[in-house]
Amino acid sequence: MTKHVVSRRQLLTAAGGAAVLLAGQVSPADAAAAGVDRQTDPADLIVGCHGEHQSGIVTPAQRHLLMSSFDITTTRRHDVVELLRSWQVAIERLAVGAPLGRNHSLNDAPGDTGEAAGQGGARLTVTIGFGPSLFDGRFGLAAHRPPPLIDLPAFAGDALDPTRSGGDISIQACSDTRIVAEHAVRDLARVGAGAAKLRWTQGGFADPPVRPPGTGRNLLGFKDGTANLDPTDAVRMARNVWAAPGDGAPWMTGGTYQVFRRVRLKIEDWDASSLDEQQDTFGRFKSSGAPYGATNEFDPVNSALLPTDSHVRLANPRTGEASEDERILRRGYNFADGYDPTTGGYDFGLAFIAYQRDPRRQFVTIQQRLAASDALNEYTSHTASGVFAVPPGVRRPGSFVGATLLDP
Amino acid sequence: MTKHVVSRRQLLTAAGGAAVLLAGQVSPADAAAAGVDRQTDPADLIVGCHGEHQSGIVTPAQRHLLMSSFDITTTRRHDVVELLRSWQVAIERLAVGAPLGRNHSLNDAPGDTGEAAGQGGARLTVTIGFGPSLFDGRFGLAAHRPPPLIDLPAFAGDALDPTRSGGDISIQACSDTRIVAEHAVRDLARVGAGAAKLRWTQGGFADPPVRPPGTGRNLLGFKDGTANLDPTDAVRMARNVWAAPGDGAPWMTGGTYQVFRRVRLKIEDWDASSLDEQQDTFGRFKSSGAPYGATNEFDPVNSALLPTDSHVRLANPRTGEASEDERILRRGYNFADGYDPTTGGYDFGLAFIAYQRDPRRQFVTIQQRLAASDALNEYTSHTASGVFAVPPGVRRPGSFVGATLLDP
Repeated sequence: MTKHVVSRRQLLTAAGGAAVLLAGQVSPADAAAAGVDRQTDPADLIVGCHGEHQSGIVTPAQRHLLMSSFDITTTRRHDVVELLRSWQVAIERLAVGAPLGRNHSLNDAPGDTGEAAGQGGARLTVTIGFGPSLFDGRFGLAAHRPPPLIDLPAFAGDALDPTRSGGDISIQACSDTRIVAEHAVRDLARVGAGAAKLRWTQGGFADPPVRPPGTGRNLLGFKDGTANLDPTDAVRMARNVWAAPGDGAPWMTGGTYQVFRRVRLKIEDWDASSLDEQQDTFGRFKSSGAPYGATNEFDPVNSALLPTDSHVRLANPRTGEASEDERILRRGYNFADGYDPTTGGYDFGLAFIAYQRDPRRQFVTIQQRLAASDALNEYTSHTASGVFAVPPGVRRPGSFVGATLLDP
Repeated sequence: MTKHVVSRRQLLTAAGGAAVLLAGQVSPADAAAAGVDRQTDPADLIVGCHGEHQSGIVTPAQRHLLMSSFDITTTRRHDVVELLRSWQVAIERLAVGAPLGRNHSLNDAPGDTGEAAGQGGARLTVTIGFGPSLFDGRFGLAAHRPPPLIDLPAFAGDALDPTRSGGDISIQACSDTRIVAEHAVRDLARVGAGAAKLRWTQGGFADPPVRPPGTGRNLLGFKDGTANLDPTDAVRMARNVWAAPGDGAPWMTGGTYQVFRRVRLKIEDWDASSLDEQQDTFGRFKSSGAPYGATNEFDPVNSALLPTDSHVRLANPRTGEASEDERILRRGYNFADGYDPTTGGYDFGLAFIAYQRDPRRQFVTIQQRLAASDALNEYTSHTASGVFAVPPGVRRPGSFVGATLLDP
């Protein structure tokens, strides 16, 4: 057996090297090789990689999530820059369904693992974040650690597995096709070999209903996301999600902060509880999603009509501007990691991802309130956690995510 | 907290009881309650539950699999009959996207867990099989154990986890929407509470490419299923898949035998191997899927041109009629159960399901040959296994899967 590891040089060569890197886009020849035909592929199958913000934040949720985290294994700052450059080239190819690298020789490992061939863009987005540990002494970045990028405090009821938590760099891959999301992380891990090593992954799925269309449901059977922030509301996004120049880390302007929580649900207990108990837990009706005291899902919430320990009331007390400024942009996915009676039954839950301008006054404030009193706590257990600074998008073709920090 | 367990009586009552049971179909009122509108829902979203064979065998593969297995916890044969009757009622409702049971009281646990509300049929199929252990002394069925339902022999290289293998009854749920497949097994487990307990589950996904459309790829990056049996070939199905009256168990006529194998793939080793090595392992070209010596995916295989230890050559030696009669109907799904360096990296592989008339001369013969010599063995490990007799379909409305055995 011949063993070879794909090299970043191979990727850059295969992708047309500097030409692609400088152009910041896939060449027509590469697009043709990938079968990309913009006349027959609906534009929404391809999510652009460039702009003020990274994709995958305000992008409407795709059906599949693969959240992942990497540990940096190199000690050289230069290698980190090259890693991020290589990932950018790779991400731009993945986004249009183009293979990573060509096969120059039968004696080499294929440049692309191949399982997503023919899948097209499938609305893939890849979103990169930097964990607190990236700002330790290794790469001279300590002075640039953004004040909002705190280490999350311990919350009451946490049952975190450190091997499934944290990490130096997060990669959130979302796509409407599962194999495309799986392929993206696997092949980015290959591209990063020698500089970064996969630490953990967490899959998830979101299946909005079809009749009638509307808000998807979580594995507790409740509509989830009814009161989420509106990602098309630019004013609200600027206020609650996007980092601003005055936030203490100029290089993060246009970026945001990502919190990941793996929230396991005690399915057997929940399924045995009464409808009354379930609805009281949320403060909403299960079937319609309407808040207590109202009739329709999107009717205004009157907190006074909700049980004091209900999840909806505690998550957002709706006390005016202070509550409004606390709100986070959630990107929640269900996970169903199987049933195994030897380890406690259903390993089901919520792969919770939230974006915000400052976790200190947003996620942490909300979660401290929930951890103290939420009726839902009886049925949940947070088993993994992470917080990451998500740099702004790539504004200049040829640049890369993280350049504002590492190559300003 | 009030705790209640949904009862089978509740399900039967909610479903209209005897009326639905006898009619063998969902009433117009139930269909309306579920939002079913046959004029606007394409018929192919709903797979019928009745016929000579169970659905989910020759049904074209849906995108998502949830394979599962149950242990019978009752000691009474009567309870097993009631379990299967209740499951049949439930399956007929699930197939059209109707909820299981109505909520009669806020003090009761909901009849349906609710997470699949509004999803419609989503091409759900539920396929039931009986494991060898169902024919032990407990239910007086020993004399009816079909001769083809053997205990699978140990194969070289097996690394089976007994807690993820076997079981008294298998339920294969397939749907184009993941939450529908997950919901089906979870709610069937609830319906069966007191008589059967979930033993294990294994998820899977199949994403056929879109440009051009065609055969899907496995996680090794190769097209998988090119040479599968054609499920529309009735003559071949009768010969290789469907149990016949002379096969030693008349109650199985129109049924088939299901073999499940969880085949873990050593992804890191595979991804580091050369294209040459990968192609030699299969005897096919990775990109096109064409067999060695040919140009196109569906060109005939000339075994003499394939490496002697290649997977394609050993799986089907193509030596004439004997080889033809060995062939199995595969229903293969990829699984990607995450990355966890503490347990060895990627837990990726193939959730292999195959249907056949007689595992003794089909799966076992093939697998013994593969286990001895297949070049692919370097990259695989069978971590779970099961074999089940899949009874014929429900021919009479009001009957149930397994009636030919338990209520003839």
